[in-house]
Amino acid sequence: MAEKELKFKILAKDRKSAARLGEIKTVHGTLLTPEFIPVGTKGTVKSLDFEQLKKINLNCFFVNTYHLHLQPGEDRVFDLGGLHRFIGWNKLLMTDSGGFQVFSQARNSSFGGRRALAGAETETLAKIDEDGVTFKSFKDGSVHRFTPEKSIEIQKKLGADIILAFDECTYYPATYEYAKKAMERTHRWAGRCLEAFKKRSRFNQGLYGIVQGSVFEDLRKKSARFVGSLPFAGLAIGGVSVGESKTEMAKVLEWVIPDLPEEKSRHLLGVGEIDDIFELVARGIDTFDCVMPTRLARMGLLLVKPQSPKKNRPKGKEFTLDITKPIYGKDESPIESDCRCETCLHHSRAYLNHLFKEKELLAYTLATYHNLWFMARLTQEIRESLGRGSFLKLRKHWLGR
Amino acid sequence: MAEKELKFKILAKDRKSAARLGEIKTVHGTLLTPEFIPVGTKGTVKSLDFEQLKKINLNCFFVNTYHLHLQPGEDRVFDLGGLHRFIGWNKLLMTDSGGFQVFSQARNSSFGGRRALAGAETETLAKIDEDGVTFKSFKDGSVHRFTPEKSIEIQKKLGADIILAFDECTYYPATYEYAKKAMERTHRWAGRCLEAFKKRSRFNQGLYGIVQGSVFEDLRKKSARFVGSLPFAGLAIGGVSVGESKTEMAKVLEWVIPDLPEEKSRHLLGVGEIDDIFELVARGIDTFDCVMPTRLARMGLLLVKPQSPKKNRPKGKEFTLDITKPIYGKDESPIESDCRCETCLHHSRAYLNHLFKEKELLAYTLATYHNLWFMARLTQEIRESLGRGSFLKLRKHWLGR
Repeated sequence: MAEKELKFKILAKDRKSAARLGEIKTVHGTLLTPEFIPVGTKGTVKSLDFEQLKKINLNCFFVNTYHLHLQPGEDRVFDLGGLHRFIGWNKLLMTDSGGFQVFSQARNSSFGGRRALAGAETETLAKIDEDGVTFKSFKDGSVHRFTPEKSIEIQKKLGADIILAFDECTYYPATYEYAKKAMERTHRWAGRCLEAFKKRSRFNQGLYGIVQGSVFEDLRKKSARFVGSLPFAGLAIGGVSVGESKTEMAKVLEWVIPDLPEEKSRHLLGVGEIDDIFELVARGIDTFDCVMPTRLARMGLLLVKPQSPKKNRPKGKEFTLDITKPIYGKDESPIESDCRCETCLHHSRAYLNHLFKEKELLAYTLATYHNLWFMARLTQEIRESLGRGSFLKLRKHWLGR
Repeated sequence: MAEKELKFKILAKDRKSAARLGEIKTVHGTLLTPEFIPVGTKGTVKSLDFEQLKKINLNCFFVNTYHLHLQPGEDRVFDLGGLHRFIGWNKLLMTDSGGFQVFSQARNSSFGGRRALAGAETETLAKIDEDGVTFKSFKDGSVHRFTPEKSIEIQKKLGADIILAFDECTYYPATYEYAKKAMERTHRWAGRCLEAFKKRSRFNQGLYGIVQGSVFEDLRKKSARFVGSLPFAGLAIGGVSVGESKTEMAKVLEWVIPDLPEEKSRHLLGVGEIDDIFELVARGIDTFDCVMPTRLARMGLLLVKPQSPKKNRPKGKEFTLDITKPIYGKDESPIESDCRCETCLHHSRAYLNHLFKEKELLAYTLATYHNLWFMARLTQEIRESLGRGSFLKLRKHWLGR
């Protein structure tokens, strides 16, 4: 059964919130939770090598099935001994189902297109039916087809420790009718994913089911109860990073979490801004992935802790420093004076500013190193606070509320 | 006096060639020679961080004065405590005079233009006169002027351990008349550089003079004797990486080296292909810089040792493996099975092929790491062979001659 493939254990619960301290055990090591999972789309967290990731103490990253399916292909990866061996990483890996990218194409191939009202189909790169999705490769236009069975087959061949059921990702805003239809299909596909997963595999993997239902309370609760009742190793909450406001994300978690079985690990897909993290941990999420810290890094936006006394940073920029601003060109101090990351220990803001100005590759490495170190220290602080029963105090320190 | 700023000592001499084992002592550590010096144009060896460079055991790199003059400017670097502190590197650094780039512009701004017969001036981005060179920035078209005094002033502000006199770099092919004129100007400028250098500086630097004279024996010998007689800390040989054949490079070294004082360290500018290295070490060169290993790496051309039995690799490709070739996409082996670099210890050719195909930043890091590790191990082997008196045997093993 799926539950045996991956072991999750709650180590402590917060008394004043739904937050919990836990651990996920896999054959590739243990992940202490709550934990942030960086994105390494094509089997590499952009600009960092694995020694650096280990030094940061990030022991899991998120790889996109869709991209690896197109290059080098799951059969190639399987022949080369699976994803861990192929890329040379002996710690945890998580893959998605490929659905997110494929359904992005179904909405439209550009990001802007995602905001079109879901349900109103136009000509797109992908076509959905009850059995699955047919789509064209964004690379060469070749035609591919994903079904629940195919997604699981690909993810088995890749062999990540945590894999995801193939769902219909509902974009935001969606009509109630479309959200319901997509949720029901996701539920039917959940059963097919579990069937496909049960077939013998040479890997020890844990399959997570996905809760959908857009921003509708009854759909979300129904989905939580249904998916939560199936024999998945863990549960993921989807469709909350596709345009909803932070208030709506909080509501979705408020509806969904109480209806999920407590003993299973919970992953939130695609969310990870600093204020989100405190919110989702408080609601009882164990792991979450997001491109934010690595993408910001490559733009020169470096994560910084809240200042005391608080600086009046513009809303949404409370936790970032834009190193490309000319003023940093003559600033001898590190990004953060109390940060112990390799970037802050050895390099000044002035050097980083210079590297970004010259578009030197080292700019991306040093910035990404800092941002991921920042995330890893933040989740470590959160875990420590959960062990000590001071989580809400920590949140207040960070967010002022 | 200049000689006191930098200490060079010969530790052993080869009996069958002019090769020597030595050490260059500076306030930022000791460099064992012969040694390869990688290029880090803008204050970073592209795609590597300094921890990686140290792990490779490369303790010096070559920074271009021209580029740092344009961004962030030498005054900025000086205000930030000099180049070492600015970039966060506490080992050796070498800067050039800026002349090479400026004179490239005088020939023409494109590489192809370098091959125009030197001496036939056309409209260019730079204008040479007896006092110096006026040139336009390739970045923004702003007008700058380098003179021997200015170049030394800039290099003092940057503060590298080894700095170079401002010379007129003769491009190849040049007329005898032009080569003579340029050499004589280089000699007059050498005196001015020494004068400018003698003025008090807060850095402990060693100034190297530069021998020019194109491919003309009498000019090269005259230049070697003249520049060799001046109180420089070391001597560099210029103008041998601008189009001459390998045979001509060997000839230039054959003419020049016997006329240089033995007790001074000798640097060869811009040369570092594998077969060149054995040639230049055999002729008595101590250090040499080249963009080759790092530039090849970013193209997916990985350095490999000679195979036994020898593979029939095409001429000029004896020491490289093109990892972008489709065949490597399914190759589980490392670049070199006996290489102990981090790339070869942890990653397969298949993964590298995938990273290059996807243009992932990690491709450049892993490839550069391997190529520089390769260079560092090669020079280490050469130094060991010089200590044991087996240098020519090593050369035969590598080159088959």
